[in-house]
Amino acid sequence: MASGRADHFDELPDQIRPLLDRVRRGVMSTVEPDGTAHSVPVVFAVVGEEIVSPIDHKPKTGVVMRRVRNLERDDRVTLLLDHYDEEWTRLAWLMVRGHATVDPNPSDDLNRALNARYRQYEPDERHDALVRIRPTKLSWWSWT
Amino acid sequence: MASGRADHFDELPDQIRPLLDRVRRGVMSTVEPDGTAHSVPVVFAVVGEEIVSPIDHKPKTGVVMRRVRNLERDDRVTLLLDHYDEEWTRLAWLMVRGHATVDPNPSDDLNRALNARYRQYEPDERHDALVRIRPTKLSWWSWT
Repeated sequence: MASGRADHFDELPDQIRPLLDRVRRGVMSTVEPDGTAHSVPVVFAVVGEEIVSPIDHKPKTGVVMRRVRNLERDDRVTLLLDHYDEEWTRLAWLMVRGHATVDPNPSDDLNRALNARYRQYEPDERHDALVRIRPTKLSWWSWT
Repeated sequence: MASGRADHFDELPDQIRPLLDRVRRGVMSTVEPDGTAHSVPVVFAVVGEEIVSPIDHKPKTGVVMRRVRNLERDDRVTLLLDHYDEEWTRLAWLMVRGHATVDPNPSDDLNRALNARYRQYEPDERHDALVRIRPTKLSWWSWT
């Protein structure tokens, strides 16, 4: 088994860096008012040194807004990207910790980066807002 | 879309309860000393009203021990179980929040419940320790 830390995506080892592209959904954890973790699955895209994830308000749900409210109070976020496989020698994960802002008017480039990764979106879809994560600490683990 | 809360597993709706069996790995988040979330993928089994997850010390890694150290300081844990599917109408997740203890001498019944779910373990494998989660709040969401 192997594990380690890095500051930037391009410092990640060869068995981990592909997770940034291949993993289809991450788990985003924000800090609740009582200090516990609030965790939800999210889609995401890596754009340069950032990770962006959409907030789509239609239909509005209390669940989505919780994540936003938490980030507005405490911008620290943890995003887990992992590969699960019944062949456990292929297990690997990357924990991204950083600070996040909610961008209510994302640029075309950021919208397109998400839409290009997920065919479920229209190519020119504009998201209501994006969570933009600036990583500060990358921790990884792999079986091999 | 639908979402809701429950206190017990048997109160979960029909589109969510199967996640307890079908999801193969959860994401466990504990509270770091600085208040941020520490998230790792885990295997697990539901046993009655508890969820158990193994801590196997061989080989020892700092990463595994972190989760244990966090729980010993703050026993509050969040476990996300979700189903991802490229057909997004099938998306669903369950967030389990509760308190956890690290059981250094798990019973045969608890070991067997895990081993029965994962063929990667020997049927009579004894785990070094188990994280035992007693849920206090279940939150769920599904596309349909």
